[in-house]
This record gives sequence, structure tokens and C-alpha cells, in this order.
Amino acid sequence: MKSLKVGMLGCGTVGSQIARLLVANKADLTSRAGAQIELVKVAVRDAKVKRDGVPDNLITTDANSIVNDPNIDLIIEVIGGISPAKELILTALKNGKSVVTANKALLAKDGAELYEAANKANVDLYYEAAVAGAIPILRPLRESLVGDQVIRIMGIVNGTTNYILTKMDESGTAFADALKQAQDLGFAEADPTADVEGFDAADKAAILAGLAFHSRVTDKDVYREGISKITATDVKVAKAMEMVIKLLAITELTAAGEISVRVHPALISRNHPLASVRESYNAVFVEAKSAGQMMFYGRGAGGEPTASAVLGDLVAIARHKISGGIGPKESDYASLKIAPIGQTKTKYLIRLNVADKPGVLESVAHVFAAHSVSIQTVRQTGAGDKAELIVMTHSSTESALSATVKDLSNLPAVTDVASVLRVEGAM
Amino acid sequence: MKSLKVGMLGCGTVGSQIARLLVANKADLTSRAGAQIELVKVAVRDAKVKRDGVPDNLITTDANSIVNDPNIDLIIEVIGGISPAKELILTALKNGKSVVTANKALLAKDGAELYEAANKANVDLYYEAAVAGAIPILRPLRESLVGDQVIRIMGIVNGTTNYILTKMDESGTAFADALKQAQDLGFAEADPTADVEGFDAADKAAILAGLAFHSRVTDKDVYREGISKITATDVKVAKAMEMVIKLLAITELTAAGEISVRVHPALISRNHPLASVRESYNAVFVEAKSAGQMMFYGRGAGGEPTASAVLGDLVAIARHKISGGIGPKESDYASLKIAPIGQTKTKYLIRLNVADKPGVLESVAHVFAAHSVSIQTVRQTGAGDKAELIVMTHSSTESALSATVKDLSNLPAVTDVASVLRVEGAM
Ligand SMILES: NC(=O)c1ccc[n+]([C@@H]2O[C@H](COP(=O)([O-])OP(=O)(O)OC[C@H]3O[C@@H](n4cnc5c(N)ncnc54)[C@H](OP(=O)(O)O)[C@@H]3O)[C@@H](O)[C@H]2O)c1
Ligand SMILES: NC(=O)c1ccc[n+]([C@@H]2O[C@H](COP(=O)([O-])OP(=O)(O)OC[C@H]3O[C@@H](n4cnc5c(N)ncnc54)[C@H](OP(=O)(O)O)[C@@H]3O)[C@@H](O)[C@H]2O)c1
Repeated sequence: MKSLKVGMLGCGTVGSQIARLLVANKADLTSRAGAQIELVKVAVRDAKVKRDGVPDNLITTDANSIVNDPNIDLIIEVIGGISPAKELILTALKNGKSVVTANKALLAKDGAELYEAANKANVDLYYEAAVAGAIPILRPLRESLVGDQVIRIMGIVNGTTNYILTKMDESGTAFADALKQAQDLGFAEADPTADVEGFDAADKAAILAGLAFHSRVTDKDVYREGISKITATDVKVAKAMEMVIKLLAITELTAAGEISVRVHPALISRNHPLASVRESYNAVFVEAKSAGQMMFYGRGAGGEPTASAVLGDLVAIARHKISGGIGPKESDYASLKIAPIGQTKTKYLIRLNVADKPGVLESVAHVFAAHSVSIQTVRQTGAGDKAELIVMTHSSTESALSATVKDLSNLPAVTDVASVLRVEGAM
Repeated sequence: MKSLKVGMLGCGTVGSQIARLLVANKADLTSRAGAQIELVKVAVRDAKVKRDGVPDNLITTDANSIVNDPNIDLIIEVIGGISPAKELILTALKNGKSVVTANKALLAKDGAELYEAANKANVDLYYEAAVAGAIPILRPLRESLVGDQVIRIMGIVNGTTNYILTKMDESGTAFADALKQAQDLGFAEADPTADVEGFDAADKAAILAGLAFHSRVTDKDVYREGISKITATDVKVAKAMEMVIKLLAITELTAAGEISVRVHPALISRNHPLASVRESYNAVFVEAKSAGQMMFYGRGAGGEPTASAVLGDLVAIARHKISGGIGPKESDYASLKIAPIGQTKTKYLIRLNVADKPGVLESVAHVFAAHSVSIQTVRQTGAGDKAELIVMTHSSTESALSATVKDLSNLPAVTDVASVLRVEGAM
């Protein structure tokens, strides 16, 4: 039986689980891959740290020695970040080694360069773990739905923010308190910016958009808003309207045939399949022309679930090494343009604090009409001389809506625009 | 650019959609497959029927001429049933043609013979459409989760029965009325036996079990109960307990390392992700050791969704033809045994009509204890001299439970055992 030698870059949360599972599942992996998969070298930053289950003699701090080792067939990259991960992967590919990576940040930024290097060397570059952790979503998009036309993807792809929003929804707490709780329980990092401000979700949105629409999409193409401005009142109002607020990574084909790709909080109906995705779970909702609506649900992160996805890719590559062939290459033939965010059409829910006197609704309605933003429902609540208007619009462009909001905030009768939230997923 | 010639066997609900989409998506399919995919011959029973979008000169009633045509590279089989589908597929494989089929009945019965023929000829045999229609579930099991250990699969894999159970749950109607409604709306066939009695779901359970546990599992291995005995009262009682009744295809690894594979109605909590799968939608809930809990949701049937899955397989095979290699072969190395149904452990909900007099509960409890079936809760309701006992057991073997039920029905105080239902999916 052939033996395939694996070098791993990084041995942290994910890497340590990969190392453990390569031993624990050895017999099954061998039978399934048709080859022995052997971990022969592991690069880390600190060689003095004891690594459970990884013999000391495998450990090195010289990652370059791994990607340049002619005895190594496959590389797993689980260092994360751009540098040195990028240079290491490029060297590995150039040296004819197939690579599995979980590095969404790198793929979203410099994917094209990596795919080109893989194509040139005619080796595999797999990255199922980079989006939604253990949930098989990239392979289904790239292979199962390849005969179909994806119309839209809406994903809950960041566990930290979904955990925070679930807590806000369940207990009515403010954002800051829910964040604190998430940090105490290890669901959020000390510096939560990448998660909370949607950077992590934006990386995943870029990867999903590129695969779904056979075009090149980078993190820079993604319009991004985080959840730090969501208030307890926003959540309460959503609840009263039988909706829930989720941070969504959305990519869809516009009427003009361009790619809209964005990350922002949005209201969705409690009946929408994504609404019941709670805590740190992830889910990706896909609409395709022929297949219709689908959802893929599961664990979006964690060392062991992520390792499961990496091992799936590893076996796929091993099978190619044994029985020949190579996985599907990057597909960017469609080369669609990115739609400017201003042209994105969604419904909006706008909350306004207004003076409670006659004519206010009329003047507010006038501003909406002036920008051709059509109103679906208005609800007015109020006590004393203050009132609140909750306006739900029909589908409108972002630019028309922004102009409307600007004019509303200048209206004498409007004390302030308390919140503006998108409404997604009309079913 | 290379051209791949496709012959299709059958042009009914699914086949006609495949033919249409091969034309409608031609440019994209070519770019994605790296080859022109050309439908060159279509076998049907009645050549005189006009087939929308299929030129008359492609049609033949001689299916054998297609599988023996040396100019044809790939075969799609969408005739259904065992014969002549089986002979045609075997001939095609023997002639070195890769095959895509949606034929769950054939795969569940004679899969092993087909896989062997495909292996021998070193060609691909793909069948994503055979289970849960458009939902990518077989490829994720076979490829994405190949580095993991599947523990359990619970699927709603039959749209007809899910539609009927949804109607019974929503409107409290009896089974017969809900079935009639489903037939009127085209969700159930005139002879609904295959769906309603669980035969269709059992075929899918066998396919899922084989893939998940790397063993050979056939339709005969599947324990099967349908939904025709589910009453409006069962549904009402479930509702009162915040549960819902679903027809589940279940396969799991037993403590003894055997495969339990079964299809039967079961109560699940309304909080379980499968509970919200309504109407004719399908979903497959998978638990794996490392990846944790996952769910795959979408359209389980229909001409166009099913065609989407077939085309995905077709492009995968086309890519192999172009860039070499072959998909993963049948994996049956584990050769696990099938666990007898008597050893299957689940919780049960049992409703008994009893005489409302002192000592009844004691005598009932005695019967459970005699068979070591431990009771979790009992609820007694009653009026006049009649009462109802609703007993929820702890996890118990099927054989102990059957013996208990038999003794209960012989108990003088028990008028009748009104219903016995399994409870699944404790989360
Ligand atoms: N954690 C998750 O749940 C999750 C989920 C999906 C995807 N991912 C992705 O998986 C990747 C790894 O994440 P992680 O959570 O495992 O990260 P981590 O716990 O921070 O581990 C990083 C590892 O890389 C090593 N390392 C850092 N710089 C290095 C260098 N220059 N040379 C050699 N080794 C170096 C570290 O060594 P020391 O141990 O010596 O510090 C550590 O072992 C990231 O791309 C991440 O986005 C993670
Ligand atoms: N329908 C679904 O939603 C669905 C979903 C998943 C999987 N599937 C599977 O897909 C397969 C096809 O289903 P379907 O609903 O499309 O069936 P269908 O509508 O009954 O079509 C069957 C086709 O096969 C042709 N045919 C029958 N016997 C033949 C023979 N001896 N030689 C040549 N052609 C013959 C028929 O010809 P005529 O047109 O001349 O009668 C017809 O075109 C089945 O295996 C089914 O289980 C179906």
C-alpha cells in the first residue's frame, strides 16, 4: 500500500485536532483513501510547547523546510493570516505539493494567486474548512450544483455574532452585555473586531460568491456592516414583528447580471429556515434556479469540526494521488462584475422618533415619495408629545434609501432616525 | 473543445427536464465541464409522443441501441424500476460508459452488482439524485465526511408522507383525508403504497446506510413501518407534548458496532431541526463524531430539482473524462453487520385505554418492570369509568417493548393498546 507523507503548518486549535484524528482514525482513513496517510512534520512558532499526541521529533520551527521537503506529498496549512501562510502555500504548490488550507482570510484576499499557482503546478488546492467549518458547503457548490444556476446565497457564517444575537433575542440584553457573556464563555475573542464588525463573514462571503458565480471576488468587493450598532430596542421591535435579526453574508445575482456581495445585519421572518439557527451554529441557505431552496446547517467552527473538513479534503487529494486525476480547478469563466452597493435592492425597516403632532406622517411620507421609495406599512406608537414611526418599505435601492434617510433626519418633525435595518429573505 | 456524447434512457418527469436544461444551460455547462455535453439519443417507450425540446430524430424505443452505441460516452438512466434499467446500466458499464442514475429502487436492491461492474470497467457510477432529490447529500457523505465517523443519520426523505403528516399536524385531519388531499394536489400517486408504507424511504435508507458505514446494505436489510396507521389522535397527543410525528429513515451505529437501519414514523421534539421541515420538503440530519450535528435541507423530488442533481453528476463525470481520474469507488471495506430490529433501542410513547379503577396503574407498571422497560413519565387522563394512560419509556430494546405491549394487551384492566410510537432525536 502506498504511503502519502503529510506536512502540517501550524498546530493550534485546528492543527492539534488534525494531528489527533490522523492517529485516531488511521485505519479508516487508510481504507478510504487507499493509501497510508502519515504526518511526518509539523511547523509551529514555539517548539518548546508540548503537543499532545505529536511526537517531539516531528516538530520544527522551520516551516520552509516542510514545503521544500521532496519527501512530503501533501501540505496542510493551519497557521492562518496572510504572511507567512501565503508564501509557504505558494512554495508548496510550486514544488508540486497539493495543499489543504482553512485560511479564509488569505483565500479572500489572494485566492486568485493561489489558484493560479495550483493550476500551473497541476495540483489540488482544497479549502472546505474555510467557510462554515464542518458544514459541507464549498464542495456542494462546486460539484453538486455545478449543473445548476445559483441565484442567491444567504449565510450565517460567523458563530460569534450569531451567539451574541441569539442571546440578545432570548434575553433582551444589550449588545455590550451579550458580547461580554460571549467572551466569558469563549465564544468571542478578547478583540472581537474581526467577528463583530463582519470582517470574518466578509471573507467567507467573497469565497462563496466566487464559487457560486464562477467569478473572482475578493474581500475588498464585499460591502460590510457589523452588529455593534444593533440595540436591544431593534431586537425587541423585530420580535414584535415576528422577525429576528441575523448577521447575514449575502451574495446574489442582480437583475443587471452583476454580483451583489455584502455582509450586514438584517431582519428575517421567524418562519425562515435561517431564523432557527441559534447559538454558535452556522447555516448557509442557497437558492438555485432548478434545485430551488436548500439549507446546509451545522458547526461553523471549533478545532474538531474544522479538522473534520480538513481531513475530508485530505482524503479527496489522497484519492487523486492514488487513482489519478485532480479536483475541479478554479472556475472564473463568467467574470461577472460586482454591483455597487448603491444599486442593491432590499426592503428596509426604519424607526423614527418624531414629534406627535398633526402632519408629521404626511411630511415623512413626502420624503419617501420624493425618492421613489414606496412604503409597505407604517406603524405609529406614541405617548405625550413624542411618537415613534416604524416604516417598512417595499424593495428599494440602497442609494435611494440613503438619500431618504438623510432627508428624514433633516426634517424638523423628526427628532432622530433611531435605526435603519435591511429586511431579507422574503419567502 | 472536446465533445461528450450523452445517451438518455427515459424521458418522463425527470428526463424531460434534463433534456431541457442541457439546452438551456449549454454555455455554462460547457465552460464548467470543459467539454461540450451533447444529448444524442433518447430512449422512450412510446416514440409517438411529442417531447418538448427533444428533436424527433433523437428519439428511439430501442434502449439497447443506446447503451451499445460506441459513439456514446455517457449514459443517464431515468427509466426507473428494476428491469430493463438494470440490464441497460450493466451493459453500458461493461461497454466502458460512465452512468448517472436516479434509480433508488435499483440501487437499494442490486447496488453491489452495479458498483462491481463500474469498478471492473473503471468508469463512474453516480446517483446523487437517488436520495433526497436536489439536496446534495450523497457527495457530502462520500467525500466531505470521509475523514470523519458518521454516528447517525435521520432523514425525512419522502415528500409525499411528509406532506401528509404536515397536513395532519396543521389541520388535525385523519390520515385518509390528508392522503386524499395530497393525491388531489399531485403530491401522492393514485397507488400511494410505495410512499405511504415506507418502501421508497427504505430504499433511500439502504443507500444512506451503505455510504455512511462503508458496508453493503440493501432494501431487505431495512426494517420498515409506514404511516397509514397514524391517527388524528396520535398527532394531537404529539402536539400536546410539543412533539411532531415524522416518517424517518434512520441509520446508526449500535453499541455492538452493527448498523441499525430502519424506516418508521416517530415522535420528535418541535425543537429538533427536522421538526420544521414541512410540506413536501426533505431534510437529512447527520451526526458525525468530529463534525457534530449537520442538516441538509431542500427539495426531495420534482422533475427540475432532480434534474439539477443529475446534471451535477454529469459535469463531475465529464470533468473526469477531460482531466483524467475517476470518482471515489464504492467503499464497503467495513463490512458491518445489520443489527436485528429487536435490539434497536429507542424511547417509546404508549397510549393505553384502561378501566378507571384503583390498582390499574400498578398492574400496568408491573408489566413494564417485568420486561425491564423503565418508565420516564406517565400521564393519566380520564372521565367516568374510562381512562387513558400515556406512558413515555426510557430507551428500551424493540424486543422488550414488544413483549411488554403483548402482555399489556392481555391485562384485564387494559381495554386496548391504542398506539405505540417511537420517540427519536433526543438532543
Ligand atoms: N479555530 C477555528 O474554529 C477555525 C475554524 C475555521 C477555520 N479556521 C482557520 O484555521 C486556521 C488556524 O486556526 P487556529 O484557530 O488553529 O489558529 P491557532 O490556534 O492560532 O494556531 C496557529 C498555529 O500556527 C502556528 N504558527 C503561527 N505562526 C507560525 C509561523 N510563522 N511558523 C510556523 N507556525 C506558526 C502556531 O504555533 P504556536 O502553537 O507555536 O503558537 C499555532 O500552532 C486559520 O486560518 C483559521 O482562520 C479556524
Ligand atoms: N420524479 C421525481 O421527482 C424523482 C425524484 C428522484 C428520483 N426519481 C427517479 O428518477 C427515475 C425516473 O423517474 P420519473 O418520475 O422521471 O419517471 P417517469 O415520468 O415515469 O418516466 C419514465 C420514462 O422512462 C421511459 N421508459 C419506461 N420504460 C422504458 C423502456 N423499457 N425503454 C425505454 N424507455 C422506457 C418512459 O417512456 P414513455 O415516456 O414513452 O412512457 C418515460 O419517458 C426513477 O428511477 C425515479 O425513482 C424521480
